[in-house]
Amino acid sequence: VGTIALATTGAAGPAHAAKAVVEKASDTKKFVGAAFAIGAVAGLFGSKTLGAGTEGLATGATITKINEVFPGALPNKSLVSKATKALKKYDYGSDSLIATSFCADEVNRCLEAELGKVFTDNFSMGGLAGFPFGGVTSFGAMAAHIPDGGSCLVVFGPHVGVDSAGSVGTVERRGRANGGACCGSAVAASGYVASVLSGDTEKAKPPADALDAQQSFVGSLLLPHAARLDKASDKMVELPYALYDAQKEMMTDVVTSAAGAVAGSGKIAVMGGIQINTPPGQSDYYLPLSFEVYDNTGTKIEDLTL
Amino acid sequence: VGTIALATTGAAGPAHAAKAVVEKASDTKKFVGAAFAIGAVAGLFGSKTLGAGTEGLATGATITKINEVFPGALPNKSLVSKATKALKKYDYGSDSLIATSFCADEVNRCLEAELGKVFTDNFSMGGLAGFPFGGVTSFGAMAAHIPDGGSCLVVFGPHVGVDSAGSVGTVERRGRANGGACCGSAVAASGYVASVLSGDTEKAKPPADALDAQQSFVGSLLLPHAARLDKASDKMVELPYALYDAQKEMMTDVVTSAAGAVAGSGKIAVMGGIQINTPPGQSDYYLPLSFEVYDNTGTKIEDLTL
Repeated sequence: VGTIALATTGAAGPAHAAKAVVEKASDTKKFVGAAFAIGAVAGLFGSKTLGAGTEGLATGATITKINEVFPGALPNKSLVSKATKALKKYDYGSDSLIATSFCADEVNRCLEAELGKVFTDNFSMGGLAGFPFGGVTSFGAMAAHIPDGGSCLVVFGPHVGVDSAGSVGTVERRGRANGGACCGSAVAASGYVASVLSGDTEKAKPPADALDAQQSFVGSLLLPHAARLDKASDKMVELPYALYDAQKEMMTDVVTSAAGAVAGSGKIAVMGGIQINTPPGQSDYYLPLSFEVYDNTGTKIEDLTL
Repeated sequence: VGTIALATTGAAGPAHAAKAVVEKASDTKKFVGAAFAIGAVAGLFGSKTLGAGTEGLATGATITKINEVFPGALPNKSLVSKATKALKKYDYGSDSLIATSFCADEVNRCLEAELGKVFTDNFSMGGLAGFPFGGVTSFGAMAAHIPDGGSCLVVFGPHVGVDSAGSVGTVERRGRANGGACCGSAVAASGYVASVLSGDTEKAKPPADALDAQQSFVGSLLLPHAARLDKASDKMVELPYALYDAQKEMMTDVVTSAAGAVAGSGKIAVMGGIQINTPPGQSDYYLPLSFEVYDNTGTKIEDLTL
């Protein structure tokens, strides 16, 4: 099973603990075979990036679930349009630079493509689960690339799939009968933190080398939210909200540490939220949860609304 | 100065050591002001991704230098075309998945866009300087996204700018009078390893938290190449070759550790090399240095040639 393959590539302890969670998420997939097969026949397995803007809004059980558990989520196109309008008061234009911090998963490229239509190519601060693992150095580098006199927009967040049956934590994937966990890194980390909470696994030490350091950090950064996930009525819904909180904290640390690398009166707009991946042919969504503007002393100037 | 801003966001020791190297790289920029201004007037500061395929080959001092110090480098479009042809014998087609491991820098998105024309959206394993910091877990997740019955192509590498005056380690950037270091993370790390080699800085301990772990790992992974960089007649040329060697070692560890996550007879093609960023209006290049095909036991089947 594809989803298990991910879990077993990690350390033995966390992988074992994650297995139950992953299987729980996968069970729901059994009900969506029919809907998925229709998608396959209709040839809807293309890239959302290449077809950006041509797909329709989410439909059926997918949009019903999104409205229920991620109220306020916007289709990518609408998000970018509203964000661009909100930033006009700070003179964001062709001298702006976009930085993203999204998960490695290819399903997240379509939001970068939509942002790219306004802001051109994105600097990429993100790593597994969407954490800004490029860190303080990546922010400094990005700031040194802002066009003269311009500002930057940083967009970050975890991602979560909502499939055509309305199941959260999985999504139909291009050419696959089994969509699997989405976000896989997050689901594996949630298994690790559950296992530490129950006492089955010892808290991992900081990684000594780079080979799988990132997933280790995803686990340690999610660990403060273990009890909250344990109590949640739907762990797959609570997981992206918990990851957002962990990422917001790290991103604020990064921005306030490195804000001085932005030149002159350049602004730092930081939007955080949850990316929602939907079936092929439907637009992805993004639930904005914060939209702050900082100056280059790291002082927050304003909370923007969309 | 923009290039210094990057260095000073890192740890004090390495940043100080890096300063001399960065300034050396920047000195050469003084000679290219005129050429750069011409680019600005001509309005050539658009995104290479949005105009992918419309820019011409590299010209003048840029292509002369590329041919001298990166012989065998191919324009991105030609690289993707040749790689696609070479992979046909392994039935790479619409059931393939592309994973990249490139640096965070936005100048590297155009190669992802070119690869995306054939392979659709890319999974992103990369972090600062191009190391596959998503690690073993990211490979496992990527493998679980390959379309049923398909294979994956992993393309990795450091990047280096060659500007319109033929200077290596810097490149003109959209809307900026000062291009600055390219790759900035690599130049900062080269300063750190030079300082450890000379005894001015102590070797850093593994990072205890995630906030700037990635740049710390870039430094420690480059450290075995400190003497080689010290002896090089042109450090800015030797740096991407040294980084390639370090990344090849890490990528091979990742692939052989996690190959089993690829289903059935799916293949793992791994291309490594050096991305070469050029001025606006000119195609970027890539120097392929290895192109290996593995099966899902982690056994190498073949060295492909382009």
